[in-house]
Amino acid sequence: MNCNYSFASDNTASVHPLIMKAIEEVNRGQYVSYGDDPFTEQAINKFKEVFGEDAEVFFTLTGTASNVLSIRAFTQPFNSVLCTDVSHINIDECGAPENIAGIKLVQIKSADGKLNPKMIAPHLGVIGNEHHSQPRLISITQTTEVGTVYTYNELKELTEFAHNNGLYVHMDGARLANAASYLNLSLKKLTYDAGIDVLSFGGTKNGMMIGEAVIIFNRESNRNFIDSFKYIRKQSMQLLSKMRYISSQFIAYFENDLWLKNAEHANRMAQYLSNKLLEFYPDIEIMYKIEGNAVFVKIPERILDELKKDFYFYIWDNNGPVIRLMSSFETNRSDIDNLVSRLKQLL
Amino acid sequence: MNCNYSFASDNTASVHPLIMKAIEEVNRGQYVSYGDDPFTEQAINKFKEVFGEDAEVFFTLTGTASNVLSIRAFTQPFNSVLCTDVSHINIDECGAPENIAGIKLVQIKSADGKLNPKMIAPHLGVIGNEHHSQPRLISITQTTEVGTVYTYNELKELTEFAHNNGLYVHMDGARLANAASYLNLSLKKLTYDAGIDVLSFGGTKNGMMIGEAVIIFNRESNRNFIDSFKYIRKQSMQLLSKMRYISSQFIAYFENDLWLKNAEHANRMAQYLSNKLLEFYPDIEIMYKIEGNAVFVKIPERILDELKKDFYFYIWDNNGPVIRLMSSFETNRSDIDNLVSRLKQLL
Amino acid sequence: MNCNYSFASDNTASVHPLIMKAIEEVNRGQYVSYGDDPFTEQAINKFKEVFGEDAEVFFTLTGTASNVLSIRAFTQPFNSVLCTDVSHINIDECGAPENIAGIKLVQIKSADGKLNPKMIAPHLGVIGNEHHSQPRLISITQTTEVGTVYTYNELKELTEFAHNNGLYVHMDGARLANAASYLNLSLKKLTYDAGIDVLSFGGTKNGMMIGEAVIIFNRESNRNFIDSFKYIRKQSMQLLSKMRYISSQFIAYFENDLWLKNAEHANRMAQYLSNKLLEFYPDIEIMYKIEGNAVFVKIPERILDELKKDFYFYIWDNNGPVIRLMSSFETNRSDIDNLVSRLKQLL
Amino acid sequence: MNCNYSFASDNTASVHPLIMKAIEEVNRGQYVSYGDDPFTEQAINKFKEVFGEDAEVFFTLTGTASNVLSIRAFTQPFNSVLCTDVSHINIDECGAPENIAGIKLVQIKSADGKLNPKMIAPHLGVIGNEHHSQPRLISITQTTEVGTVYTYNELKELTEFAHNNGLYVHMDGARLANAASYLNLSLKKLTYDAGIDVLSFGGTKNGMMIGEAVIIFNRESNRNFIDSFKYIRKQSMQLLSKMRYISSQFIAYFENDLWLKNAEHANRMAQYLSNKLLEFYPDIEIMYKIEGNAVFVKIPERILDELKKDFYFYIWDNNGPVIRLMSSFETNRSDIDNLVSRLKQLL
Repeated sequence: MNCNYSFASDNTASVHPLIMKAIEEVNRGQYVSYGDDPFTEQAINKFKEVFGEDAEVFFTLTGTASNVLSIRAFTQPFNSVLCTDVSHINIDECGAPENIAGIKLVQIKSADGKLNPKMIAPHLGVIGNEHHSQPRLISITQTTEVGTVYTYNELKELTEFAHNNGLYVHMDGARLANAASYLNLSLKKLTYDAGIDVLSFGGTKNGMMIGEAVIIFNRESNRNFIDSFKYIRKQSMQLLSKMRYISSQFIAYFENDLWLKNAEHANRMAQYLSNKLLEFYPDIEIMYKIEGNAVFVKIPERILDELKKDFYFYIWDNNGPVIRLMSSFETNRSDIDNLVSRLKQLL
Repeated sequence: MNCNYSFASDNTASVHPLIMKAIEEVNRGQYVSYGDDPFTEQAINKFKEVFGEDAEVFFTLTGTASNVLSIRAFTQPFNSVLCTDVSHINIDECGAPENIAGIKLVQIKSADGKLNPKMIAPHLGVIGNEHHSQPRLISITQTTEVGTVYTYNELKELTEFAHNNGLYVHMDGARLANAASYLNLSLKKLTYDAGIDVLSFGGTKNGMMIGEAVIIFNRESNRNFIDSFKYIRKQSMQLLSKMRYISSQFIAYFENDLWLKNAEHANRMAQYLSNKLLEFYPDIEIMYKIEGNAVFVKIPERILDELKKDFYFYIWDNNGPVIRLMSSFETNRSDIDNLVSRLKQLL
Repeated sequence: MNCNYSFASDNTASVHPLIMKAIEEVNRGQYVSYGDDPFTEQAINKFKEVFGEDAEVFFTLTGTASNVLSIRAFTQPFNSVLCTDVSHINIDECGAPENIAGIKLVQIKSADGKLNPKMIAPHLGVIGNEHHSQPRLISITQTTEVGTVYTYNELKELTEFAHNNGLYVHMDGARLANAASYLNLSLKKLTYDAGIDVLSFGGTKNGMMIGEAVIIFNRESNRNFIDSFKYIRKQSMQLLSKMRYISSQFIAYFENDLWLKNAEHANRMAQYLSNKLLEFYPDIEIMYKIEGNAVFVKIPERILDELKKDFYFYIWDNNGPVIRLMSSFETNRSDIDNLVSRLKQLL
Repeated sequence: MNCNYSFASDNTASVHPLIMKAIEEVNRGQYVSYGDDPFTEQAINKFKEVFGEDAEVFFTLTGTASNVLSIRAFTQPFNSVLCTDVSHINIDECGAPENIAGIKLVQIKSADGKLNPKMIAPHLGVIGNEHHSQPRLISITQTTEVGTVYTYNELKELTEFAHNNGLYVHMDGARLANAASYLNLSLKKLTYDAGIDVLSFGGTKNGMMIGEAVIIFNRESNRNFIDSFKYIRKQSMQLLSKMRYISSQFIAYFENDLWLKNAEHANRMAQYLSNKLLEFYPDIEIMYKIEGNAVFVKIPERILDELKKDFYFYIWDNNGPVIRLMSSFETNRSDIDNLVSRLKQLL
């Protein structure tokens, strides 16, 4: 048996056939490059159907870029961005937020990967004092890096607190689809309606090939940030010349709610995995609530090396150790059954 | 008749069918992301066959990124990069070299888009003086932004001068394939053998969808730059998760010299266009030698607006005006015939 | 005879006795640091008397810093700053404007060190195009780096053109005092009244020890830039803790027009030098009009090394060669007589 | 009674008379600017006497600058710097380390303001992984921001651990003099001998006007960093033209151990304050060991506003509240007696 890569991340998956088909379909003839083509226009219209008319969308090339460009747009270099200690922008982007946007990250310890007003408040005392980076943007992740989900009310409470204190809120939505599926709420409800100012919207982890976008809401009040964005994107090396090959993916992604179906499947597989684990091993320690497509589970150190031979996954915490098992739109039950049965053997 | 986009740029073209086929073929199953997959390994091997064993290759997402990351790798922020006034890094990258790499561009006026030692020498007097950015890297473009080509000897002379003066040489090879075709020399001959230290190798303008790479030569002496590069790439937001979709393109690009066939065709079409123009209008002013896939031609101001209705192209210089007409792997004779015949009508 | 350093720059001079006295006088007791002290308040009031009430002033530590912080305040990283090829920000700041502000410098060739609307206009065609850095700020130097002076009308014409085109104007006033003396106009007339938006005001070259300031005019319309400035200054490492030792210098500098007397003397010495040179050697080539405290003179190559033994000065252009001879508030006639007499011997 | 500023910081003090005298003494005649003058040479020699021959010294203008330039010299932008959560570089520099050096700060919680190998080790697991900023430099503060002191052995243990793991160690020595006095060890013993690679050496808080320096040790192995430093300093806007006015201060500072006498006095005053407090109020909570010139004391919230009327000081922690009381070379017993007696009244 070869090593199974299904559980490492949702980006080990392939491209969904309907996405691939859409790419092929735009592959004829010449079109103006850099986004002045009809497919990009169509894709942008799709975004407005989904997220509402009061949204401007810009395509980028990586999820890291979506996050960093969102930060660049909404901050000045003397600002700080408040995030959790486990946030992707803090841990997994090789310092890109600090280096490219020039800002400071204020890293707030969080037990469940979420932030709330009480955790933010103590960091606002520095406002107005030139010796300290000035808080400007709260960045949250939905679903969080530990697989938990902000409810609509939690989002609303946080964005209201932020706006009342002169702050903006950025959502890293690399896995927003999984949250929408879990909560059974629309993408618009979970972003625009909930008061989010700027969103990194990711499709790559949910069946696309290269599908990342930044959405800025509230066109009137955020007009300056929107007007600057195209320059920030180009300067940040995120403007693809043959844009139609991204746009076509997004068109297919929203068609017949493909995004939702993919996310639903991935979430279901995480539940299935978690249930199977608890079934055969009721004492197994599952670290966080399963609300998206991630399962964090503590396993005995002694079986780690054996398990690694057949399955590729990330070790989240060497203490435990805790391993992270992700599911995706193409994870299937037999992958999970194999994993669980191997675990049974080893334990 | 709709507007014809063929002449605007070689990036208005579609993706070559063989490249598209290669993408489809890797679209099954799960693979480790971020480049630890067998297709990326295979693509890297292809690069070594083509450019020699003494080369390290890193895939990126845009041509601007290849240039900026090359600069980041070979400079410190107090360095300057010497380039022509018409270079892409100076004009067309929204200040990315300065902003992302932090360096100064020394912009040298050039009549034919090329640099030579005599043009560089006057800028070296500042070496050692802390008040001035320190020259470190010469950046040249092959084929140049005005469609001319450096010969092997010109390259060799420049790189020897550079190395004797403690400088490195970067080549922006967004259209290197067209130069190789024109000179009938191998890619290795025109880069590694010619003394180039770091190369932006572009495929997007020659039939790929997203195909950009940075190649660092001379592994022994450039070991530090090579070791740093993966961090620079990630921090610069250029590390694609589903890397196989780029790697597969490069595999097909090198297979049976597809890259060369595409470039040959594009060059041939530029020659054809130029010949047709001179044929019907011997006094027409073609601004630069046709050595690649670009034709710069001065046209009377009065016909500009009319011509624009049917053909999309860039105005290179409002004085003239001079327009730029590009050809690509899929430009065909009838496109050109239509353009020339429309010009005949208007003149 | 020891080497005479008088002519190298106006910053080889010592500190004017009245400035030194002012420093000593504040040297007693404890005061709040970082500028919340009564001397700083008094100095700021002096600035408002001189430059008008519609001005906000911030002290910095070097002239380079004043320039770079002015740029940081008025630009975003995707902007460009238009300046001459010989400007201090382009040549003499080791790339600080690009590196610290992240912007691009558009370097415009200038015969007399000045810019005018005709020279700016061709660079505005890129506005709105995301591929190009966006022009935002014109930076001029008064007196210029070659010792010439913008008239009030020239300034007015340039700032009106700038404002009509959505641009701001920065003045590098490292030697503004010399221009005011030459034109017999007030500092306010030459800055606020002339439409300047932001000024680097230098005192170090005119008798101070460490005396640099940024003045932002038009408080109402530039409110945002003013509000950000204190953070930019701190982050740019320009906030001195014991601020009273700068403030006291500025108080003395404005007292009884010390600044003007110093500048008048320096200008007079440049005239004296130039007259003496022309007297004994009518064919001597003086490169620029003597409007400030700089004399650029072409000398025969053969005497360069001999002259250097007794006098320290900068070679402005190796072709010529052209040497730069500066005068300061403490240059005296005998220094000049010695220089001229040595030149006589050598020629 | 006016408000007493003695306790706010050691930078509310004036300039020591011997320092001021030294400044006056160099104030005659012209000298080459930017540090090529005999006083600067003399000052550098003094540094070598004190810190050993294997040290290169560069003067800067602020303590923040010394820290940031040390970081710039020893890191690349994809590196991280490990520091405590209360460190000056993390809290009090308005994001300058991130913005100017481009790096990430890894903020490690510390109870006593110090770091040790056990606190560093868990952060080294990311080495070699491109998704994470690469640890490169440990930055410690001596005396720490809470007034504690690293012993020689603690320093040695930390630097050995660092070097064994490919890391460098920076010391923020804004108050190094106070530590040397406390430990009765030489500056060389506490830096070079203890394995420190780069030192921010501050004099401003100990009686100078503007006295900051970066010292890089181990010339052979740190040759590259040393060679780059002058460019980094100029680009970072820290090169003063009239350098002799800094150099002269340092000459006087080292003459007859003025630095040590000043520090001894300040430390003694902190002890005196602490003793007086404990004397009249044995239950008073002094938060950290008094090893330098800082006393952190918890006071009842109800007396805070009253106390502020007569004494200016910083509130370190609103919970408590805890106030910080600093002493300096010119704090005198009567200042302290007044403070203590006012506290008695209020309590």
